Amino acid sequence: MRLSASLLAASALALTLAAAPAVAQDAAVIARAAAIRDAAMNQNIALDYVTQLTTRFGPRPAGSKSEQDAAAWAADYMRAQGFQNVRIEEFPLVGWERGEESAAIVGDHPQRLVIAALGHSPGTNGPIEAEVVRFTSLEALNAVPAGSLAGKIAYIDAGQMVRMQDGSGYGPLTRIRGAGPGAAAAKGAVAFIMRSVGSDEHRMPHTGTTRYVNGVVPLPGFALAAADADTVSRLIGMGETVRIRLSSTAHTYQTTSQNVIGDIVGRSRPNEVIVLGSHMDSWDLGTGAIDDGAGGAITMAAAKAIAESGRRPARTVRVVLYGSEEVDQPNNQGNGGGAYLRGIGTAVEQHVATGESDFGADRIYALGLPLGAQGTDFARAAGQVLYPIGVLPSPQPELHGGSDVGPLVEAGVPVFGLNQDGTRYFDLHHTADDTLDKIDPEQMSQNVAAWAALVWLIADSDVDFRAMRPAGAAAH
Amino acid sequence: MRLSASLLAASALALTLAAAPAVAQDAAVIARAAAIRDAAMNQNIALDYVTQLTTRFGPRPAGSKSEQDAAAWAADYMRAQGFQNVRIEEFPLVGWERGEESAAIVGDHPQRLVIAALGHSPGTNGPIEAEVVRFTSLEALNAVPAGSLAGKIAYIDAGQMVRMQDGSGYGPLTRIRGAGPGAAAAKGAVAFIMRSVGSDEHRMPHTGTTRYVNGVVPLPGFALAAADADTVSRLIGMGETVRIRLSSTAHTYQTTSQNVIGDIVGRSRPNEVIVLGSHMDSWDLGTGAIDDGAGGAITMAAAKAIAESGRRPARTVRVVLYGSEEVDQPNNQGNGGGAYLRGIGTAVEQHVATGESDFGADRIYALGLPLGAQGTDFARAAGQVLYPIGVLPSPQPELHGGSDVGPLVEAGVPVFGLNQDGTRYFDLHHTADDTLDKIDPEQMSQNVAAWAALVWLIADSDVDFRAMRPAGAAAH
Repeated sequence: MRLSASLLAASALALTLAAAPAVAQDAAVIARAAAIRDAAMNQNIALDYVTQLTTRFGPRPAGSKSEQDAAAWAADYMRAQGFQNVRIEEFPLVGWERGEESAAIVGDHPQRLVIAALGHSPGTNGPIEAEVVRFTSLEALNAVPAGSLAGKIAYIDAGQMVRMQDGSGYGPLTRIRGAGPGAAAAKGAVAFIMRSVGSDEHRMPHTGTTRYVNGVVPLPGFALAAADADTVSRLIGMGETVRIRLSSTAHTYQTTSQNVIGDIVGRSRPNEVIVLGSHMDSWDLGTGAIDDGAGGAITMAAAKAIAESGRRPARTVRVVLYGSEEVDQPNNQGNGGGAYLRGIGTAVEQHVATGESDFGADRIYALGLPLGAQGTDFARAAGQVLYPIGVLPSPQPELHGGSDVGPLVEAGVPVFGLNQDGTRYFDLHHTADDTLDKIDPEQMSQNVAAWAALVWLIADSDVDFRAMRPAGAAAH
Repeated sequence: MRLSASLLAASALALTLAAAPAVAQDAAVIARAAAIRDAAMNQNIALDYVTQLTTRFGPRPAGSKSEQDAAAWAADYMRAQGFQNVRIEEFPLVGWERGEESAAIVGDHPQRLVIAALGHSPGTNGPIEAEVVRFTSLEALNAVPAGSLAGKIAYIDAGQMVRMQDGSGYGPLTRIRGAGPGAAAAKGAVAFIMRSVGSDEHRMPHTGTTRYVNGVVPLPGFALAAADADTVSRLIGMGETVRIRLSSTAHTYQTTSQNVIGDIVGRSRPNEVIVLGSHMDSWDLGTGAIDDGAGGAITMAAAKAIAESGRRPARTVRVVLYGSEEVDQPNNQGNGGGAYLRGIGTAVEQHVATGESDFGADRIYALGLPLGAQGTDFARAAGQVLYPIGVLPSPQPELHGGSDVGPLVEAGVPVFGLNQDGTRYFDLHHTADDTLDKIDPEQMSQNVAAWAALVWLIADSDVDFRAMRPAGAAAH
C-alpha cells in the first residue's frame, strides 16, 4: 500500500485511509480492476438487457403501463442475474399522454408538417388555426410588447443545434423549450412552436419536457422537424404569410412510477454504498434505446461484471433503474431520483459515491472525478486502469452528475462522471429514431468495462471522496 | 472536322454526318461545350427552382391539386426563364390518396409501429387485426400452400437493401413490393406488410407503388420502417406470437395529371429534338426534393445554360416535366411518359435523343451512351468535355433510361444516361425525409454542368445515334 504526498495533503482523513485494509491504489486492486475491465469488454449482459427491454416493451413513458410492466420485468431480470435485495419503490406522479396530433400549413397550397407536442403540453381542445410570427431567439420573443401576439402562433427558429462531443450545444436550446410556452403566453399567443432541439437533418421532431408556470404548462407547445422548420422559415423569408393549423389531444393524468433497485452486497462494509443509475422511462416516440435503456444496460452489466469477478467488493454496489426521469416537476416530486433520496433517509451519509449513465451508448472518453479527487493516488489508479480503453482524465471535476442523481448530489453524495461521446446523441435524442439499431455494441461494451473497472476501484477500497473536498465545498 | 475509322465503321450513314455543317467532335463545338459546362458549374437556376417548388407546394402526388398547381407554376417559371412554346399537356389517371393510417402490435405489451401504405393499396375498411406470419423472401411466401395464410398478415423481411453506388440493390426488393400483395392474397392473407425498401436506418417507412392484379391492388399493403421491421422480426425470433392491428383509409379517385413542356428552339434544324426530362410528381410523405424536384431543376437549368451561352444550338432542346411518374398502370396509361409519346405522334422520328434525370441530385460519375455510340468520335468528344468534372465513360451502353422516357425508348428514340451517385439515394427515396436540405448544391451544379455540356454536343451537331446502332438493334 502506498500513499502519495498529494493525497496526504488533500485531506486530514488521509491517516484513516492509510490504516484501511485496501485502498484503490493497491497494485492488487488495480490488477483486479484491469481484469474486470478486460472481461467486461469481451462479454457482458448489456446488449441482451437493452434488446429485450426495447423489443418487448417499446416506448416507456413515465407512469405508463409500459414503464410499469418494464420495471416488473427488469426486477425479475436483475434477480435472475444474481442481484440481491431486488425491490421496486413506487411513487406518485403526474403522467402525460400525447394522444393524437397533427399540423399543417393552410391556405392556397396546404402541406402537412411533421411535429411533436412538447412533454406536458396541454391539448389544443379542437384545432387552433393562426398566423405564425417568427423569432430567432427567446430574447427576441421576450422583447415584444405584451399582447402583441394576441391570436398568433409564436415560433422560435434559433437554427440547428451545434454538434459537440460533450453535448454542450444542448443547453442554449433547451432554454427555449423550457421557457418558450410561458414566454409566448405572456405576449398573448395561442400556441408555441419551435425548431426541434437536435443536431440531425431527418424528418424527426424532438420532443422533451417544458416548464410549468403556476402548476401548468400554459400553452400548447410543439417541436417541428428540422426540414419543416426550414419550410416555414423559408416561406416567411419569401414574403408569404404562413398560417398553421395545430391539433393535439395531449393530456395529463395521475399515475405512479417506480424505481427498480438491486444490490451486489459488499463483503465487509455492506452499509457503504456506491449507487450506479440510469432511467427506465423513455419518451413515447422512440423505444428509448439510447435514452436510456442503454444506461441501465451499462450500469447493470458493470455491477454484474464485478459480481462475477470471483471476489465480492468490500462495499455494496447498487444499481437503480430510476422511474420518471423525463419529467421536470418542482421539488423533485414525481421523479425517481427524488423518490430514491427520500427512501434512503439517513443512509445517504453512507452513500460513498454515485454516478449515472444517461448519454447514450457511445464510448466513454473522459473520467470526471468528484471535486478534490484530482491528482490523488486514486485518480492515478483510475487513470492507469481506464487509459488502455481510451478514457482520459477530465480536466474538470464532476459537479452535477445528471437528473437522476441530482437529489443525491444536492444531499452531499460525491459524484463521478464517465463522459460519453455525444457527437451523434442529439441526432436521436427524444425522437422516434431512438431505437436499438442505433446502439453500437462495441462502444457499449467499452462503457461497461469502464464502469466496472472504476466502480471496482471505489468499491473494493475505503477511498473517501467527501474527505478530499476542499473546505467550504460540502454540497458538491 | 474529323471522322474516325470507328465511326465510319459504325454506320453506313457516316457520310451524311461528314457532310454536315457541324458535328460534336468539332474543336469549336467542344470548346463551347466546355465553356457552357464551366459557366453552369459556377451559376445556374437549379437550386432556385427546386427550393421554390418544394417549399411552395410540398408533396405533389400524381393527380393531386398540389401537382396541378405546381405544374401551372412551373410553366410560368419556364416562361420567365425564356423557354419557348411552353405548354401543359393534360391526361387522365387514377389517383391515390393515403388518408389516415396506423399500425400497432397488440396484446399484453402493445406498441405503435411506424408504417406507410404502399401506393395504390386499398384501405382496410376498418381495422384489421391478425397474427403475423414472417417470410424472408417472396419465394418462401409463394411456396406455402394456397389458403395457408387465411386470416393472417403475410410479412416479408428480406433484410436491408444492399447499398450500391449504381442503386442496383433496389431491384431485388422492389420485386417484393410489386408482387407481395398479390402473392399474399393468393394464399388467403388479409393484408401484406414488408420491411421498407431502403438502405437507411431511420424511422422512415419507404412507400412506393405496387402491382395491379386484374385492375386492382388485391390487398392492403404496408411498408414498415427498418427499426419496426426489426422489432417484429425480433419478437418472432424470441418465440412470441405477434398480432398487429392495421388501419388505412387509402383510396383511389379519378383525376388528371399533366406534362409541362418548354423548348429552346433550335436555330437551324428546330424539328430535330433532344428531350430532357424528369418528373414533377412526388410521393406524399416527403416534399419530393431528390425524387424528383432535383431532376427538373437539373434539366431545366442545363437547357437554360445552353440558351444563355450566346449561341442557340442547331437542334431544339426540350425540357419535359412529366406528370405522374410514380404510378405503375398498364400500357403507359396514366403516366406522363406515355402521354408525351402519344402527343408527339410521328414527330417521334425526329427525336434524336432523350435522357432523364431521376436519381437524386448527387454527382454524375459516368456517361452511358446509346448502343453503338461507344468508341466513336462523339464518345471521345463527350469524354473530353466530361472528364474534367469527374464523369467517366460507362462500360455499358444505356438501354432503358428510366420510367419517364421508357415509352420514347420503346418507340426507338436513342437514349443516353448520365449516371448519378446513388450511394445515399435509397436512404431518402419515397420517405418523409426526401426534403430540400438533402440536396448538396455543389453536386447538383456538377449535374447541371454535365447535362448542359453533353446536350450541347448533341444539339449543336447532326450526330445521329440511330445510325450508329448495330444491325438488328432497332428498338434500342
